[in-house]
Order: sequence, then C-alpha cells, then structure tokens
Amino acid sequence: MTQRPIRLSLPSKGRLEVDALDFLAETGLRVFKPNPRQYEAHVPSLPELGIIFQRPGDIVVSVRQGSIDFGITGLDMIEEKRGDNGDILILHDALGFGTCALTLAVPEAWKTVTDIASLKKFSAESNTPLRVATKFPVLTERFLNQQNIPHKLIAAEGTLETAPTIGYADMISDLVSSGQTLLDNRLRPLTDGVIQRSQAVLIANHHILQTRPEVLEMARRLLEYIEAHLRAKDNVLVIANMRGENPQVITQKIFTQTNVGGLQGPTISPIGVRDGTPNWYSVTVVVRRDHLPQAITELRNIGGSGIIVSPITYIFEEEPPRYKAMLAALKG
Amino acid sequence: MTQRPIRLSLPSKGRLEVDALDFLAETGLRVFKPNPRQYEAHVPSLPELGIIFQRPGDIVVSVRQGSIDFGITGLDMIEEKRGDNGDILILHDALGFGTCALTLAVPEAWKTVTDIASLKKFSAESNTPLRVATKFPVLTERFLNQQNIPHKLIAAEGTLETAPTIGYADMISDLVSSGQTLLDNRLRPLTDGVIQRSQAVLIANHHILQTRPEVLEMARRLLEYIEAHLRAKDNVLVIANMRGENPQVITQKIFTQTNVGGLQGPTISPIGVRDGTPNWYSVTVVVRRDHLPQAITELRNIGGSGIIVSPITYIFEEEPPRYKAMLAALKG
Amino acid sequence: MTQRPIRLSLPSKGRLEVDALDFLAETGLRVFKPNPRQYEAHVPSLPELGIIFQRPGDIVVSVRQGSIDFGITGLDMIEEKRGDNGDILILHDALGFGTCALTLAVPEAWKTVTDIASLKKFSAESNTPLRVATKFPVLTERFLNQQNIPHKLIAAEGTLETAPTIGYADMISDLVSSGQTLLDNRLRPLTDGVIQRSQAVLIANHHILQTRPEVLEMARRLLEYIEAHLRAKDNVLVIANMRGENPQVITQKIFTQTNVGGLQGPTISPIGVRDGTPNWYSVTVVVRRDHLPQAITELRNIGGSGIIVSPITYIFEEEPPRYKAMLAALKG
Amino acid sequence: MTQRPIRLSLPSKGRLEVDALDFLAETGLRVFKPNPRQYEAHVPSLPELGIIFQRPGDIVVSVRQGSIDFGITGLDMIEEKRGDNGDILILHDALGFGTCALTLAVPEAWKTVTDIASLKKFSAESNTPLRVATKFPVLTERFLNQQNIPHKLIAAEGTLETAPTIGYADMISDLVSSGQTLLDNRLRPLTDGVIQRSQAVLIANHHILQTRPEVLEMARRLLEYIEAHLRAKDNVLVIANMRGENPQVITQKIFTQTNVGGLQGPTISPIGVRDGTPNWYSVTVVVRRDHLPQAITELRNIGGSGIIVSPITYIFEEEPPRYKAMLAALKG
Amino acid sequence: MTQRPIRLSLPSKGRLEVDALDFLAETGLRVFKPNPRQYEAHVPSLPELGIIFQRPGDIVVSVRQGSIDFGITGLDMIEEKRGDNGDILILHDALGFGTCALTLAVPEAWKTVTDIASLKKFSAESNTPLRVATKFPVLTERFLNQQNIPHKLIAAEGTLETAPTIGYADMISDLVSSGQTLLDNRLRPLTDGVIQRSQAVLIANHHILQTRPEVLEMARRLLEYIEAHLRAKDNVLVIANMRGENPQVITQKIFTQTNVGGLQGPTISPIGVRDGTPNWYSVTVVVRRDHLPQAITELRNIGGSGIIVSPITYIFEEEPPRYKAMLAALKG
Amino acid sequence: MTQRPIRLSLPSKGRLEVDALDFLAETGLRVFKPNPRQYEAHVPSLPELGIIFQRPGDIVVSVRQGSIDFGITGLDMIEEKRGDNGDILILHDALGFGTCALTLAVPEAWKTVTDIASLKKFSAESNTPLRVATKFPVLTERFLNQQNIPHKLIAAEGTLETAPTIGYADMISDLVSSGQTLLDNRLRPLTDGVIQRSQAVLIANHHILQTRPEVLEMARRLLEYIEAHLRAKDNVLVIANMRGENPQVITQKIFTQTNVGGLQGPTISPIGVRDGTPNWYSVTVVVRRDHLPQAITELRNIGGSGIIVSPITYIFEEEPPRYKAMLAALKG
Repeated sequence: MTQRPIRLSLPSKGRLEVDALDFLAETGLRVFKPNPRQYEAHVPSLPELGIIFQRPGDIVVSVRQGSIDFGITGLDMIEEKRGDNGDILILHDALGFGTCALTLAVPEAWKTVTDIASLKKFSAESNTPLRVATKFPVLTERFLNQQNIPHKLIAAEGTLETAPTIGYADMISDLVSSGQTLLDNRLRPLTDGVIQRSQAVLIANHHILQTRPEVLEMARRLLEYIEAHLRAKDNVLVIANMRGENPQVITQKIFTQTNVGGLQGPTISPIGVRDGTPNWYSVTVVVRRDHLPQAITELRNIGGSGIIVSPITYIFEEEPPRYKAMLAALKG
Repeated sequence: MTQRPIRLSLPSKGRLEVDALDFLAETGLRVFKPNPRQYEAHVPSLPELGIIFQRPGDIVVSVRQGSIDFGITGLDMIEEKRGDNGDILILHDALGFGTCALTLAVPEAWKTVTDIASLKKFSAESNTPLRVATKFPVLTERFLNQQNIPHKLIAAEGTLETAPTIGYADMISDLVSSGQTLLDNRLRPLTDGVIQRSQAVLIANHHILQTRPEVLEMARRLLEYIEAHLRAKDNVLVIANMRGENPQVITQKIFTQTNVGGLQGPTISPIGVRDGTPNWYSVTVVVRRDHLPQAITELRNIGGSGIIVSPITYIFEEEPPRYKAMLAALKG
Repeated sequence: MTQRPIRLSLPSKGRLEVDALDFLAETGLRVFKPNPRQYEAHVPSLPELGIIFQRPGDIVVSVRQGSIDFGITGLDMIEEKRGDNGDILILHDALGFGTCALTLAVPEAWKTVTDIASLKKFSAESNTPLRVATKFPVLTERFLNQQNIPHKLIAAEGTLETAPTIGYADMISDLVSSGQTLLDNRLRPLTDGVIQRSQAVLIANHHILQTRPEVLEMARRLLEYIEAHLRAKDNVLVIANMRGENPQVITQKIFTQTNVGGLQGPTISPIGVRDGTPNWYSVTVVVRRDHLPQAITELRNIGGSGIIVSPITYIFEEEPPRYKAMLAALKG
Repeated sequence: MTQRPIRLSLPSKGRLEVDALDFLAETGLRVFKPNPRQYEAHVPSLPELGIIFQRPGDIVVSVRQGSIDFGITGLDMIEEKRGDNGDILILHDALGFGTCALTLAVPEAWKTVTDIASLKKFSAESNTPLRVATKFPVLTERFLNQQNIPHKLIAAEGTLETAPTIGYADMISDLVSSGQTLLDNRLRPLTDGVIQRSQAVLIANHHILQTRPEVLEMARRLLEYIEAHLRAKDNVLVIANMRGENPQVITQKIFTQTNVGGLQGPTISPIGVRDGTPNWYSVTVVVRRDHLPQAITELRNIGGSGIIVSPITYIFEEEPPRYKAMLAALKG
Repeated sequence: MTQRPIRLSLPSKGRLEVDALDFLAETGLRVFKPNPRQYEAHVPSLPELGIIFQRPGDIVVSVRQGSIDFGITGLDMIEEKRGDNGDILILHDALGFGTCALTLAVPEAWKTVTDIASLKKFSAESNTPLRVATKFPVLTERFLNQQNIPHKLIAAEGTLETAPTIGYADMISDLVSSGQTLLDNRLRPLTDGVIQRSQAVLIANHHILQTRPEVLEMARRLLEYIEAHLRAKDNVLVIANMRGENPQVITQKIFTQTNVGGLQGPTISPIGVRDGTPNWYSVTVVVRRDHLPQAITELRNIGGSGIIVSPITYIFEEEPPRYKAMLAALKG
Repeated sequence: MTQRPIRLSLPSKGRLEVDALDFLAETGLRVFKPNPRQYEAHVPSLPELGIIFQRPGDIVVSVRQGSIDFGITGLDMIEEKRGDNGDILILHDALGFGTCALTLAVPEAWKTVTDIASLKKFSAESNTPLRVATKFPVLTERFLNQQNIPHKLIAAEGTLETAPTIGYADMISDLVSSGQTLLDNRLRPLTDGVIQRSQAVLIANHHILQTRPEVLEMARRLLEYIEAHLRAKDNVLVIANMRGENPQVITQKIFTQTNVGGLQGPTISPIGVRDGTPNWYSVTVVVRRDHLPQAITELRNIGGSGIIVSPITYIFEEEPPRYKAMLAALKG
C-alpha cells in the first residue's frame, strides 16, 4: 500500500498567507502554485513535500487528527484548538512573522477601567456578568476563570471591535497588533490584559513523527533550513582592506574591537596593490546586522577602508538545536 | 431616558449583502451608507430606522439577544442559531433571494452511495463513524441523529468542499446553490440529503415587538412595503386599444379570455381618433408577468392593438397577510 | 467662422463624477463615453451638447473664463473660485447630490472648545495665532476674518484630518459629510463652525448666455429636464379601484382625504366587472412619495382596493421657475 | 432519445458581454449565472432556454455547426465567419449596441492618402504590395480585391494599431468606434474605407429552425420580446390635464398638434376637481422620446398642464415584422 | 541612412509577460517601462536594445519578417508559426519558465480511450472523423496526420476545455501545465498525447544576424548574460571554518567528499583566532543548490563549522556554448 | 518635557511612494506599516525614527515649518515651495528615482514654435499674453519672467495636458518624464524649455539640525546608509580562478587590465586543486556593474576561469562626503 505524501499546510488567505509564502521563499523553499484556483501546491526544492492551503483553525485540526503532517499558523489558533492530548508538537515557536496578542479591551468610556484589577472592581459594581465577545472562547474562558472575572462569552463571526457600540457585548477579547483598530473604535486594551502572545509557528503531528521516519527526516530538513535562514537574516559578511605588518598583527587589532570578531575570527588574505605597497590585507568577518554601524566605525578606527558588505543566505551551526529539542520531546 | 433607535441588521459582505441592498432599494427603502468604512447606515425614506451591518451569524445572535430589533439573513443561519426559546420571530419567510440548501454530499468515488439509505448501508459496512465536516453543526447533528447515521462532526472554517480530498473528513454538509462547486470537487449531493432549504428572511425580536409599540409599527411598515413590492414585481400594467359598441361589450370580450381579467376587471376609457371613427376604447388590465406572452395573444385575438406594457412599483392589497400572521403569533 | 460647440463640464473623478453621471442619466441625459481614456463624451439625447471632464476647481475656472459654457460641481468650490465679477451664474442651486459642508474642526483634546465663542477664548489665551489647515483658503479666510479670529492659514494638498496630530496645523477647515472621518481622527466640528453648506449645482457663463442664443436655449432645456425630473422623483402615480354611485360621489370621497387629491384632482374611469356589478371605478392620482403610506391608508379608508403604484419619469409644470429666474438675472 | 435543450450563446467577456446582458435584462430576459466560474447560465423568465458564454468567433462557428441554436454577437464577426452555405440566419440585425465599423486606416504620415483612390495611387508609386494587418482576413481580403489594391495580409493577435509603428505592417484594417485609438496611434481612417459596418445581431441555425418546431417557437418569442422592447425604449407615456367642453373638442385640439397624436389617438378620462369646476379631462398619449420637448410645448400651447411622463416597458404591434421575415426566409 | 535600433519583443500580457520581465531582471537586464500605456520600453543596462511588447504569435511573425530582431516567447507558438524557410533561429531553447505541453485530451466519459492506440480504435468504431478543437492547427494537424487519425480541426478563440461539453468539438488539443483545468472540465490527457513540449525560448532573425554585426554582438551579450545567470541560479557559495595542519591537508579532506569540490577546488585562507589557536582556515567552495544539504553534512563530517552560504549572481564559463552553437548555425 | 520623536516624511501615494519605500528597503531601512489605513509607520532597523506619509507639497511645508525633521520628495516640489529663508537644507540631491523635468510644452499645431526664441516671436505676433496652465506657479513665473515672455498663469488641478485642447490655456508648464503623455495629447516640449530638472532628494530642517544633536546624528546615519547603498548598487564582487607563479605575478597581470583593479587591488588566495597542480589562485575584485562585460573579457584574456559574480549590499568609504557637506552648510 502506498503511503500518502508528506504534507505541510499553510494559511489560505490574507496577510498570514502572504507572509508564510514570503518566509518559505526566503528560506529557500519557494512554493509553486500552478493554478490560483487550486488548494494544493508543491516546493520544487523539496519534491517529497506537498503543500495544502487551509484556514488557520482547520490547519490545527488537520495536524491534530494527522490528516496533515506539518502546519504553519499562528500560535493563538494553535493554543485555542490544540486540545489536551499532546497530538500537536510545536517544532519551531518563533518564525518571526504574524506577531500579535489576544488581548482584553474595554470601551474608552469606562474611564476607571485600565487593568484586570479595575475591571474586577467595575464588574463587582454592576449586577450582571460582563458580556465578552470573542473568536477565541477556549483561551478567553480559561483566562477569565483564572482571574475570577464573572462573565458571559458571546461568540462572534465578524468585526468584534464594533460589538460594544452595537450593544452586542460589553467588551471584547481580540487579536491586537498595532492597536490602531481598537483606537479607531474607541476601545482600550487593559495594560495586563494579554491572554496569549502569538506569532507564526511550525507544528507537526506527534504520533506521525514517531512512526514515519521519512516524516521525521523531513522535520529535520525543515528545521535545518529554517534555523539557518533565521540566523543568516540577522548577519552580514563584511570585508575590509587593512594594512598591517602581518596577519597576526591585524588579527590582534581586530580583537581589540567589540563587533567585528566574526563567528570564529577574521579570515585574512593578502591584497596585491598597484604601486607594490606591501602588507595590505583583506579581512572578512561576519557581523550582526544591527551592529553594522558600530562595526563600520570600529573598522575605520583600526585603519579599515574600502569596506564591502555582502548578504548571507544561510548560516549552518553544528546541529539545529530545535531538532534536538524535538527528538527529546518525541522520546519523552 | 431616551430609547435606543430602531435597528435593522443586514449581512456585512458578499453576495448576500449586495442582494439585500438591492432588494431594499427595489422595495423603496434604499440604504445610504455615507462612508464605506462605517458599519452603520440609514434609510432616507424611513428616517426612524437605523441600519447595522454584521456577519450572518451575528445578526441572529443580536436579534435573539435584543440588541438589534430586525434582521435580514439566510434561514439556514437562523435555524442554526435561533435557540429553543422563541426569542426570534420570522416576519417574512421568502424574500426571494439568497436561495440555497444545506445538503449532505459524498465523494463521487463512493459509487454506491446516492441517498440516505445507501449511505447508511455504506456506513454499516465500515467500522468507524463517518466524519462529516460542516459549518452548521446544530442542524447537521439533528438531521444525522434523526436518520440514525453514526457520525463524528468536524467543525471547519474554510472551503469544506476540499475536506474529503485532503482527508480532513469523509463527507460534508454544506450549502449548495448551483451545485457547481460540488461538481468541481467531485462530490455528489445525496438525492434526499437536503437538511434545510434556505433563502433570505426577515426576523424580529419577539419580546421587543410585544413591548415597544413603535417597533411593532415599524414591523407593519416593513411588511407593507415588502409585500406590496413582491406582489408588484410579478405583474405589469397592460394597456390596449380596442374597438367595440360600448364598454360593456368590450368587457364581455375581455372576460372570454384567461389572462387579461385584471385584479378586478378592465378599466375602460374612450379614445379620440383622428378620422372620427367612433367606439375606440383604451383597456387597462394588470397581468402576471409570466403570463404576458399569452395575454398579448389573447388581446390580439379579441382585436386589441397598440398594446403598451408599463411597470408597477407596488400593489397594495387590503391588509398585509403576514402582518396579521405576526399579530397572531405575538398574541399566541 | 464656425462656433465652438456648446459644452458642459463634469467632475472627472470620485464620488462626484459617479453621482453626476447617475443624476444626468436619471434626468434622461445619459452621457456616453466611447473610450475611458478620453476626457470628452456626448449625450445622445442632446446631440448639440459636448461633455468635458475636469477637476472641480478647473470647472469653475473654465466657466468663469468662458472656455466652457456650463458646469456641474460643488457649491463649495464655486464659492471658493468664482471671483467677484459675476462671470458665473448659478442656474440650479440644488441638484440633490454631493451634499457636504465646509466646517471648522478642532482636536477633541481641546475640551473647552465647542463653538466659535469658546474658540476665540481659547485663542486669546494662547500667544500665537491659530494655524488652520485648509484647501479652501478664500472661504476660510473670509469667515475667520468676519469672526475676528487671529489665525495663520496653512495650505494643504493631502488628508487634512491628520494635520493636527502631525503638528502641521492646530485645527482644520475641511469638508464634512457624515463626520466619520473627523471622528476617526479625534477631531470635533464646532457647533456653529459651518463656513459654507454645499451640494452639486449647475452653473453657466453669464456673458455667453447673454450673447449666444443657442446657449440660452440649451440652458432652458437643461433646466426643463432637471426640474421635471426632480419633481417626478418625489411623486408616484397611484391607481385604486373604488365603488360609488357616480364619479362625482367618488371625487367627493377623495377630497375628504389629505394626501390623495392629485395635482388637480383624480382621474376617474369606469371598470368592467366580471359579474356585472355596476359602479366600479378606477381612480388615478399623483401622490408624494413620502406620503405614500398615509395615502394608502386613506384610500383603504374610503373603500379603495387593488391599489397599484407606478413610477413617474417627469412632471412638467407650466414653465420652469428657475429658467424665469435666470432670464431675470441676465437682464438685471 | 431526449433532445438537447435550446441554447443561446452570448459573448463571454468585455464590453460586448456587459452590453448583451444589459440588453437582455432590459428586454425582460435577465440572465442568471449562479457561479461566476461557469460558462453556463439560464433565464428564469424563459426556463426552456439555456445560455452559453463563448468568444464571438466561436459563437458564429457554433451556430453554423448547429451545436448552438441562437447567438448574439457582432455582425463583423458573423460576416467574417458565416461561410457561404446559408447555415446562419440573421433574425434581428439591429439590437442597438456594439456599434463599430471595420475600417482601413493608414499612418498620419502618409499625408496624401485620404481615401481609396489616393491609397491606390500611393500603392502604385511603391514597388511592393501594401502589408495590411488585420484580425478579419476574409472581409479585408474581399474588400481589397474588389478595390484592386495590391496587398499582403498580415494576421495579428494583438493591438493592431501599433503595427505600423513597429514595422509589422504598413497599414491596418481594424474595428473603429470612437476613433480615439487610431488618433492616439497617429493613424487616419480612409474616408471611404469602411469595409463592414457592425452592431450586435441575433442569429440562428437555419436548419434547426426548419426541423425543430420548439426552436422556431423560441425564435418567435425572442423576436416578440426584443421588438416590443426596442419600440418601447424610444417612447414614453404622457398624461396631461386639459379643460374642454367635451372629449371631442379636446381630441380636435390634440390633432392640431404634430407630436402628441398617440399610436391611435388620445385616451381621454374625466377628472374630478376640488372646486367642482367641470370639463377637466386627463389626456394620455404615447410620444416619441426624442420629440418629448416639442410635445410638452405643444401640450402647453393647447392648455395642457400638470404633465406627467411615465416609462413604457414594451409596445407590442400586430405581429413582429422580423418574425414574418424569418418565416419567409425559412420557406425561401 | 540611420538604422532602426536593435529590438527584443516580449509577451504583452499574462503570466508569460510577468515571468519574462522577472527573468530578465534576475539576469541583470531589468526592463524599464516609463508609461504603462506604452508598448515600448528599454533596458537601462543595455541602452542599445529597445523592447517591444506583442502577443506571442505576433512576436514569432515579427521576428520571421525581420521587423523585430529578437523575441522571447513559448516554443509552442514558435513551432506553430515559424514556417519552413529557416528565417527564425532559436538562440536559447530553455529559459526555464513558461513550461507546458500541447496535448491531446478526451472526455473522461470515453472510458476506453487512454492513449493514441485506443483513440484510433475508438475513432474506427464511429463513422465520422473526430472533431478536434485547437488553437494550434499546424502542430495538431501534423501530429494527427502522422498518427493516421481521421479528424476535422475546429478553430477556436476561447476556452477550449468547455468545447466537448458544449458540443463544439469531440476532443481538444490544448496547452496543459498542471492539468487542473482539464480535470475541472472532466477531460483526460492521453498518456502519449503530447504534441509539443514547450517553455520560453530566445529567438532571432537568421538573416539579420548574418548581415548586421551589431545585432550579432547583441546576441553574444544576451547569451553571455543569460547563460551566466542560469548557471548561477543553481549554485551557491559556501564558506566553512576548518582546522588542519596546512592548506594541503584540508584540501585532501575536502576531496574525500562528493559535493564540496568546487568548480576547480576550494579557496583556502587563514583565520585569525581570538585565543591564538593556530591552523584555522576558511574554505570557500561553489556547491550546487540542490546538493546543499548533503554538502553541509559532508563539511560537518570533516570538521567544518560556522558554515556560511552566500548567493551568486553570475557564473561565467570560458565562452557561452550557445553562442558557439549560434555561430555554427549561421555559417551552416 | 519629552521631545517629539525624530520623523521622516514620505510621499503618501503613487509611484513616488512605491519608489521611496523600495529605495529605503534596498538601503536596509525597510518601512513597516502595521495598518494600511494609518499615515504613520516605523523602521524596525532604526527604532528612533518615525515615518509619516504626506502629499509631496505638504512634506516640503512640514520640513520648512519644522513639524517634521526629514523628508524625501521631488526636487521640483521643494524648489516650488521651499521659500527664501533657508529653512530647508538638501542633504542628498540624487537618490536616483522619481526623475522628471518641469518643462514648457506647446501644441504641435504651433509648427513654428520649437524653442524659447521662436515662442517669443510667436507671442510677439499675437496681441494677448500667452495663457500658461501649470501646477508650479512659482517656478514657472520666475522662468517666464527671466525669459521676458508675456504671459498669464492659469492654476490647474487636473490633467494639464488637455488644457490647450479644451481652451483652458494656450500652452502648459508640466512635469515630463517619458514624454509619452505630451505626445498622446499632441503637445511638443520646447527644446530649451526645461524649467527645473528633478529627482527624489532628502531634505531636513536647517534649524533643527543645528539645535538637536540626536537629529544631527540621525542625519549622519541616514547619509551613511544611503551613500553606502548607492555606491554598492553600481558594483559587484568578481571572483576568478587564475594560475600564476605567485600572487605578485598574478597581481601584475591584473594591473595590465583596465576594469579589474578593484578599489585597492585584488585579494589573492590559494586554491587547492584535485590533481595537486600548484599555483592556482582565487582572485577577488570589485568591478563596476556597467563594466562587467569588459571585465569578464579582460579576466579571460589573462587566463581567468570559473568566474563568479556576487552581489554587494553596501560599500562604506572613509566618511560620507555629503555628511561633511552638511556640516559645512550648518556652520556656514
């Protein structure tokens, strides 16, 4: 009997789809969708992997059931729908996009309510439980119960942020990224009202990883690529010209500085100079992108000139730490 | 204390929104939305009525709670979410748009399964309950239980019709209008698999109708306009020239025919003719639009000529029957 | 030498263009634009009239110069740009679309400022003149001077409503229709801060009307159509069946009611009834659209049944009053 | 054996599709397309008729073969593709939309070439036949041969109007409506260069009309509706109040005027007047839309007032002339 | 007399246009189109080259005539329209985008027909030749004749895949990429029914290359850039840190592995290490992108660490082989 | 008191917005706009910098007033609105996008007018001053006065290029990039009619730079990034394999060539070769992108092979020259 192909499910619309496809492309796993009407696609550089497009909640259910092996979607939806039985394993918890937070927000008109404590006081003063509209009933219920806030959850399909004005609910528990939508609707997030921080994560079906070695190997390759890409994204290759008696002297100068030491140390190669001036060297180091201005200054300080910065596609370390963590979880 | 204004909630997006706005405009209740970003609007010809835009499910919940007085949305969603306690009253059950049916469908590959009976046989032969994906769990559950079909419901957010191919579920319970989407995905509706026929309907909150007379009066006006419009839509005004000794003779000729008798009978007025020929009359009758070809033939048969057809905006009968039905329900 | 054709200039983009084209089509003057790239079009039912599309301000300048004969645009822009020398004559001042008002608005944070008086107080307390951003410097300047408010006008190209937040200006003078945009940007209109109410109007070049009779005749036809359409838009034709001894008796019944008297009185024609019952009549009256519900009730009260409502395209009165007003202005 | 349903094929995209759907809707045959992806649709008011959407050329081929019964498309394409054997019958040759003309055009730079004669002179002076790009090789070839112009046809898929600039051809034979595209590309139509005038027409398969009576009956109904609609479109119903000793006197007054005589003559009904003034009558006539201003003037001249204009949906004459013409052609 | 500029024609719309522009941009020949309305553009990095946009078929005709020098379009269209006289020379036959195949497909309902042999059997059993709809009559005719399949070609403008359902043809010869469109329309490609495989190719006019040296030089530059880009796309630069007694020892280790030998061999440079540990080297090799995972494993196996992967823009070999092939063809 | 954050204002719509955002992203300063409705954004890699979106003219006014610190917009608008008092300092005058020129253009029909001289002659022959429509009255007025051309400026909001045809003006002063729009409207630019050449530039408020050191430091960083990016954009890194007795010999060969000398000279590192052949070296140089073909030829000429080209992100020189210029201007 032939096995079903290994499959990764991605969000099927909106910003999360665009960001997931961009992320995979930058990671070297460009998704090719031959026909816009199709819900299936593939990754030319990983021919064994099929791609499926689903709504975020359906991705979580599919991976939980095992009809799909891997999924990329928001942690918010995963926590809402993962259930209790450990069917879902989070392989990578910080893919760096889709950042938001499930947050409690109240009408600006409730001037005294700014945090959980004042909300409880406000609630105690009224006779009825607060009606809270949300699309995340599991997480919201758990949080409100933990905080001992009397409430009634109101399920909603549409734009939650208008619910208090319409009278559909008293307050909301909604995803917040920039906060602009809350502001436009005269709602205010509670300062300690974050129920669940979220960003895009990579999940897999626990049981399948344990029983199908080719899926486990695919997990290793996905993590290898993803980690090497995320590491590379934050670094650049810097090459400077520098004069010095010999490579050792230059190395010493480099090590007097903070940001230009490289992963291991500078690679040093001789430069031929037109007028024959001796002792010019090319020095190559890896520098963190957000330290680049300081690194340039440091290189200039020790005589560096003609400084060139080049992009890096991947940085592979000894072994992907998250892969080791996954193996531990599978054994656990 | 000032009362909240009377409000009607409409679907906030998609074909149902467009059709609802078109329907209201044809009914003489054009909705004016000053700003596309707003979820509020008003009806210049009914200034006491506010308009709110919500998702279909939220409309049902809002009317059930009483945060909104009236709603127009699909009967499917109303039956799914109305609950048991009679909070929702259906004022008009056939607005004539949004027609579809919640229907069970199976993969074409299940060649032996064509109706409920063969589905039960198919199900009995397998060991596990059928996994049925749906966005209407209440209606689907009730139907499957009534039919004694062992099953497991799978909630879904997105495009259900791909669920069987992905392996997310074995079969689906989904809204079907033309059937093209099922066909494209190689699914087949069961011949007796209709769970709920649906079209757009007008609902109201039962309790509010009983307690706020101005809302009751608004219900009467909405029904008056809607019924007069729906009746008018199916009829036209037909005017023919006809010669006859006198109006009575012409009336008799008219009544020999099937489709041109009018609501009551023909209106007959004299025509002045250029050459003074006497006894020409103009005959005006109301004719059902779908009988128009036969009516034209009948008029020609009895000597009618120069036949003009004009549009009708409303036909008001003695009293709107659905308004009487509503009053009865409120008393019941 | 051949004369330039008579030309009417319309707004070239946005809601005002759509509304102007819809208005003309309803008036029976559908504009045909053979090619979307062109700025020229024509009106098949008025072949002598050419159509030009321009920005609102350019329309006013063109009619003022006389390079264009007629224009339809907002009164706001006309008042801003018409100049002092009477070159522009307003032929119709209420076409019924494009309604808005140039209004002063201040940040919500200025809690004490709600009207002109409190604005002056607020201004007096600060040392510097208020910086007011606007796209209507002429009208705004005149108003602020009349109100004796020390100020500095800041010309702006873009979205004025963000100016106070950015710090570009302290307050704004901007067009307001629903007020939603002000609300979204936490600005508040002053209660007596309306500088100029506006809607779409029809203008013409004064001098050309005096010197080119064919342009004067075109003005008459435009006004004739526009007035007949605007009058018709607010009325419907109502036909009811009614029994009575004779037409005079029915006429008397009709005149006991308020809303069904017609322009002159009811037209009354006999109806032939199937069973020969005598004395049935069809009664036709013109009713104001916003009195329709009352008219239906009145007709039912006096025995009316089978009430049909039909649309009216135009109502022509003796002579268009605005045409007479124009002739007076030209002589003046 | 069950017969294939009767089918009408419509253009599947662009302005011609929109105009054909609008035309049918105005004619009372609104097309309902349940799913935008489908190439099939139906007409609720003519349930026996199926609708197919195809490219213009494929419509002609389909009707010629008899795989489709009826088609609506441009006469240009029909003449290009109809072949010689009379398989295609034109039922209605002037549906009133899609107007254009297949026309020869030359570069503006050919200053001496303005008509066929000067083109032949220009051609004679050069040594090589003119290269003419076109999408209508059959019509263009026939025309150029009739005119004895030496030429070489160049088939083209795309925007012909750039062909001379690119050097792809010397001149073009292309569809021209407003002429703006030619002007933009510095091409000039020859004054007598029209090869084929065109607008949308209704065609049918000759053989099927002769052999399937239900298709013949459908042809009759389509023509009946279309002719009644086209006639109605150009007329309005005018109702005026008028005073006169008796209906005969009023009729005589009416007949002194040119444009208000009606199809047959005026319908005259008494009006009840509030103050009891006798001898007021309501006069109803059908007036050609483009004579409306004159008709209003005439009615005022003879004492008409309170003039109301109403729309007409259809005007049915004795029998549709084009249906008779079709029957003659089928017998021929 | 001034020569016409050298011109390259690109597809003017759809996916092929987007892919061609993307391909050229990646190749370093970004096309700049100053105005979206224009059909002309240029390449800032190749100022002597003009760009023209045309439909695919017109590109082939233009290059064949010599009105355009170079073209990029699908091989399918080139084979359909190139004619017999060798006017068109294919310079590069695999640009790597626009992949599809002209393929015979039959209705799924023809259950016995799966390949050419069974199609012939099916055809023999019916009395009439198969009607085959296609937009590629030349290639399809030639193929069907070679296979001795009795047939009648039906030219089509629009969506071929609906032709069998409509009855326009029995089967089709159409371009297939993912096969989804066939599947949606219940058509099945024949297993050996591929008539012409296709992807985007670069063509030129044979005669112009022989007579205009500057066009020949442009051909050399285009091929140089394209080949260097296509080669680079499949490779990456890999830099690893490695410890070894001396460069020779490290070189030997490298050569024990399969995927990390580089084009020639590894470049080896010393690394200065913070704690002075001697004998650390940076090793740089070019690795095929699809061998990257294995290469990383191999490098780790021989002690590589801190492995950095960088992108490559071009790889230039001794001389572009396709340029040599072109020169041979021109001489042949 | 807390200071307002440092802010950079960008064009809020059209091509200039897209190009500015692309430019900043390539420069390493990707702008993140959390919500498309907002007019505010930020740059994750420069957290101290806020981004504002405004219309071009409002950017200039904002920087002039000091409500915004930095702006990027077209030089045309800056020169039009900068005023006389030196409030605006241009930090970088050639960002390389948004290139166009404010230019005088006349109708093609004015056949004798090709330059300023012939325009003056033409003007002298007519009795009235030329009416010149423009959106840049300040620059146009100054230029026309300098040239002693009698004129009347006509302010315009909309598409200037139609003004002469409409009769709104005689000629125009408008922004020209490709000239296609002028051509389409049969206008011709004067050969010496350029009033102001323009491209996007970076400006700052003079006074703020002098008084807020953190704004001065931001100016330095912006210039550092921008200059390093613009320099890098025009160069690539070229690596070739080459054989030679020793590095010095190879260096000498390199220096015999024109385009491959690098910033300083080639970096030379040994290559390990599989068969042990000695004396192979890898040579790395920086080459100007537009000299790449020549550089490849030169490297081949001196025995280079396996030539790899890699991208460069930044090239940092000793100190940004424009930063020094700015400091000088601030002191001046």
